[in-house]
Amino acid sequence: MEIITAKRAGFCFGVKRAMDITVEMAKKSGMGVYTLGPIIHNPQVIEKLEKEGIHPVQEDEIEGREISALIIRTHGIPCQVYDKISAQGFRIIDATCPFVKKAQRYAKLLKENNYQVVILGDINHPEVKGLMSYAGEDVLVVDEHSGLPALKSKVGVVVQTTQPVEALKKVLSKIVDQAEEVKVYNTICNSTALRLKETEDMARKVDIMVVVGGKNSANTSQLAGLCRSLSVRTYHIETSGEIDPAWFEGTDIVGITAGASTPEWIIKDVEKRIRDIGGKSCNGN
Amino acid sequence: MEIITAKRAGFCFGVKRAMDITVEMAKKSGMGVYTLGPIIHNPQVIEKLEKEGIHPVQEDEIEGREISALIIRTHGIPCQVYDKISAQGFRIIDATCPFVKKAQRYAKLLKENNYQVVILGDINHPEVKGLMSYAGEDVLVVDEHSGLPALKSKVGVVVQTTQPVEALKKVLSKIVDQAEEVKVYNTICNSTALRLKETEDMARKVDIMVVVGGKNSANTSQLAGLCRSLSVRTYHIETSGEIDPAWFEGTDIVGITAGASTPEWIIKDVEKRIRDIGGKSCNGN
Repeated sequence: MEIITAKRAGFCFGVKRAMDITVEMAKKSGMGVYTLGPIIHNPQVIEKLEKEGIHPVQEDEIEGREISALIIRTHGIPCQVYDKISAQGFRIIDATCPFVKKAQRYAKLLKENNYQVVILGDINHPEVKGLMSYAGEDVLVVDEHSGLPALKSKVGVVVQTTQPVEALKKVLSKIVDQAEEVKVYNTICNSTALRLKETEDMARKVDIMVVVGGKNSANTSQLAGLCRSLSVRTYHIETSGEIDPAWFEGTDIVGITAGASTPEWIIKDVEKRIRDIGGKSCNGN
Repeated sequence: MEIITAKRAGFCFGVKRAMDITVEMAKKSGMGVYTLGPIIHNPQVIEKLEKEGIHPVQEDEIEGREISALIIRTHGIPCQVYDKISAQGFRIIDATCPFVKKAQRYAKLLKENNYQVVILGDINHPEVKGLMSYAGEDVLVVDEHSGLPALKSKVGVVVQTTQPVEALKKVLSKIVDQAEEVKVYNTICNSTALRLKETEDMARKVDIMVVVGGKNSANTSQLAGLCRSLSVRTYHIETSGEIDPAWFEGTDIVGITAGASTPEWIIKDVEKRIRDIGGKSCNGN
């Protein structure tokens, strides 16, 4: 049984940067380092960081704590929340992914130039909640399946960085049916696009796909959904502990991929576990 | 045999306006009224205007003529040509369709704001040649089937007013694969869109479609192409003289539509001819 691991599995640029900032801050500051919400959507990483003294805290749990530094995670936060925590006197470390920051700036710019802002993304995702805060009162959040209400004649579009470009194409097709002027900032992160592409290519040539990452990670779930849509048998796991050797009976090739919030040690561990079951790595990273 | 004539068959707003301007100018000025190229793409109308003393003239045929007024047709002209003829001293009447004028202004605005301008349209159509002159040196003209070369990161789009919106959607899908910022002015004329829609609906319920208009009229040819793509038997004719009664044998319903440059008298004449063959108008305009 061959094992192929995606070259682009695991931490993207923005997550790696945020993790480095967080760990360094913990070393410097010792006690009282908090992240505003879990730094990434990966329970195993959060557990590990807790042991190193870095705790996630919700906005409404801040009051009364001794905080030396509060870290804003990659997804970013609404500008109103930023203003509120800034007023509280403790150090704020902004680890918002630079690509998300760019999307926030574009949303603001579109609003300032009188565009009705349409955000393509998941309305429940923290990144989108942050973007919305910059986009003005008539902001509209859509996904690729949304029907559109009546739009203004000037529409501006920004995109949650982890959306697939095909979703943007679908939404644009609906917008040009209505709007006279459409300004699109394609804020989809290139790393997401390449990861999706690599996973798609891999899923087309293997018997089983093992997708590694938080069950609460949107981009990991998206990878698993993509594999399933291509009719390959797909397992979305968080750790090697979930692997059942029976999955691999009669299997020739296994593909492993992982979301942007999955650390390398978990991917290596999954790879090792499958190798132990009877696989042979042939293109690992 | 029932005959249905499209409500939106014939002259659009811009063509009607240009025809009115031309005829009025001929009445006022008498001799020496010229149009820069045929005023519309309809040979029968051009012939009729010739009899009223209005002659089409090409740019390189102007020199040495006694011109009292030169009329710019609905399609518009390149800005360089405008500058050249303006320098010659005779009166210029600009009958460029206001929607085409708007597209020209947008092309200029995009160029001035450092967008690479992409024009969706037919590179050989006079409207597109006019638009190109405003769009800067890196302008790209594409149709819905074009593959795209490498684009700049800022791309601006304007559309030949008679293109179908589906073509715009296809081109946009290709552009967002490359560009980081896309500004689209949907300059498709609403009258074109509604005419295409009405023709499509009609073609789905009749046995034969008769499409009336200049064989050199792009928008009329587009209507005929649309009907053929829906597998309905389609005849593109310029006048009732081309009609063969054999076409209608065993036919229950005939649909008539016409391009934006087809005058009402030609449509009425076609309708009458079919009625004489054995049809009964049931929804004429």
